[in-house]
Amino acid sequence: MARRGHRFALALTGATLLGALLAPVAARAADAIGDPGFKIVALDKKALAGPLTIARQGSFFVGGRDIQSQDLSTLPAYAAAGTITVDQMYTRFQVPATARGTSIVLIHGCCLTGKTWETTPDGRMGWDEYFVRRGFPTYVIDQSGRGRSAVDATAMNAIKTGRAKPDQLPVVFAASHESAWRIFRFGPEYPKVYEGMQFPVAAQRELWQQMVPDWLNAMPTPNPTVPALSELARQLKKTVLISHSQSGIFPFQTASLDRAGIDAIIAVEPGACPAADGDLKPYTGMPIMVLFGDYIDLSTRWAPRLKTCTEFVEKTNKAGGRAELLLLPAIGIKGNSHMLMQDANSLQIADILASWIEQRTASK
Amino acid sequence: MARRGHRFALALTGATLLGALLAPVAARAADAIGDPGFKIVALDKKALAGPLTIARQGSFFVGGRDIQSQDLSTLPAYAAAGTITVDQMYTRFQVPATARGTSIVLIHGCCLTGKTWETTPDGRMGWDEYFVRRGFPTYVIDQSGRGRSAVDATAMNAIKTGRAKPDQLPVVFAASHESAWRIFRFGPEYPKVYEGMQFPVAAQRELWQQMVPDWLNAMPTPNPTVPALSELARQLKKTVLISHSQSGIFPFQTASLDRAGIDAIIAVEPGACPAADGDLKPYTGMPIMVLFGDYIDLSTRWAPRLKTCTEFVEKTNKAGGRAELLLLPAIGIKGNSHMLMQDANSLQIADILASWIEQRTASK
Repeated sequence: MARRGHRFALALTGATLLGALLAPVAARAADAIGDPGFKIVALDKKALAGPLTIARQGSFFVGGRDIQSQDLSTLPAYAAAGTITVDQMYTRFQVPATARGTSIVLIHGCCLTGKTWETTPDGRMGWDEYFVRRGFPTYVIDQSGRGRSAVDATAMNAIKTGRAKPDQLPVVFAASHESAWRIFRFGPEYPKVYEGMQFPVAAQRELWQQMVPDWLNAMPTPNPTVPALSELARQLKKTVLISHSQSGIFPFQTASLDRAGIDAIIAVEPGACPAADGDLKPYTGMPIMVLFGDYIDLSTRWAPRLKTCTEFVEKTNKAGGRAELLLLPAIGIKGNSHMLMQDANSLQIADILASWIEQRTASK
Repeated sequence: MARRGHRFALALTGATLLGALLAPVAARAADAIGDPGFKIVALDKKALAGPLTIARQGSFFVGGRDIQSQDLSTLPAYAAAGTITVDQMYTRFQVPATARGTSIVLIHGCCLTGKTWETTPDGRMGWDEYFVRRGFPTYVIDQSGRGRSAVDATAMNAIKTGRAKPDQLPVVFAASHESAWRIFRFGPEYPKVYEGMQFPVAAQRELWQQMVPDWLNAMPTPNPTVPALSELARQLKKTVLISHSQSGIFPFQTASLDRAGIDAIIAVEPGACPAADGDLKPYTGMPIMVLFGDYIDLSTRWAPRLKTCTEFVEKTNKAGGRAELLLLPAIGIKGNSHMLMQDANSLQIADILASWIEQRTASK
């Protein structure tokens, strides 16, 4: 019944639903956690603590292509001309001793790497280990052109040696602490903090250390992470693609390319959802969850994104899909920043995701 | 007695010793593995296979500094001015359920990241897991400015917007497949293979995917990895710094900075050893092992490095140190490339390193 009711809520018009979701903080009701439409089953404390036994672990790359270049080096010790491999995607995994049939893939967002999901800035267990302890084979990637996945930096040498012009330098940006503070909704501006906000700001330095320059806008189209995710999903056979922020659109683009291997999609605060007036067929055959944290109504960046994602969820369901939108404050979970996998209640959020996967897919 | 003999060999003059070490391939003797001066104890097959139980795992950063810049972005979505953190060192670790008191730190070389030590290109267990199974808390780093450790890319935007000139672009180089083939001693030139060479060339694509542009020459002096390793060693209290190739000098520079926490140093095919005529005091108080693989005499890059490292070992011992040089062919282990942690006999080499640590330090 609750599930019905939840579906009904999502079938409201975007405007009506948003009106309810974006009610002012003061008007937010209930201390008890409300019903998200599925049963939230917490991982018990015994499973969370103590030694962890894994069946196997390792890392590998997916995708990539060889290119020839004359601009590999300006140093005599390394030849300027030759072949390099670019666009590949680094993937690290752990498979627990007692593993479910469905695996998960954790896909980080802007200006970050797979480190996003590991130990939190204040030293608590990351989602990477949580999901292994919950029984899921867990795959953490570095997007193509980020972290351990190489960028193509040859343009730098072409410009350094005068073979190309400075305006041909790739677009590479870094998010400042001050920008990230607002974008991640820690507060209205650096260093002010929203009341009740759950990111461990005392450990913020460890977050700043995680941030890397972002070559996203210098990558080919489609972003090579998308076909690489597709290849990974085919290898894994039954997997849930879990995105965050800037990578939010990637699992949808992957499903649009090829549904093979994708069991479900979870978009954690996606930077974009597919257009509600576009072709929604690729998304109707699988469970989809779009999740947002708190303070959305206070952010000119995130409020419109919630709106378009709400419309996407609604239209996908009208087209016969099984999409759900979960706004955490609507079920009484308050204070979550954009970095909710690192917030003080990160494992509570993980419980929600894992419960949803267990109940919506054939993961058991 | 064997140990004495080994020490004696190292006390030969550099020229005499090198003459013996660099004897032509055809003249290499013995099929049985010779005596390296300590007992090689293989990790038994039971410990190598089956589930792995770890007490704890995670990741964190060491070091880094905040800089202000006007050149963070050329995109409207991200402010051009603000603060970012650079020079930090990413560190991932696993502590086995039954852990020794001495930990190890694995420090990768040029154009690579911590991936070096993980699953081999042909899918076998990496040294990262081997050492955990052997009982060592194991720490794998990405050098500052490589992999998950951010580079400072602000100069790119300064040049793109005309605030700086193209020749101020940082020196960033990529090693081509063809260069790496020779440097890693897979063969005399791409794609020729030395007879008996142990790198799994059929899986070479997975090695090319591991390679990343190298900002080494764009880093401040001393390389921020060095003070970061020092801070890490102090945190770990008793650790063995294991370098490879380009990072070979880093553990020595770290010991020179501060000996605290450093139990021993292993230099796997170091790109450089400390100068034999320099101050050797920082190195006399700890066990040091310098290890080289095969085909050194065929490489104009590596033969001189073996020579200077041999002189370093000899002079360090004359100054009262406990340094050892192990040339694998000299004990009958043949065919090792520069990437010996990925060679077909990689776990045999790991047995040698682990045995040496166990017998030379108070690790038990």
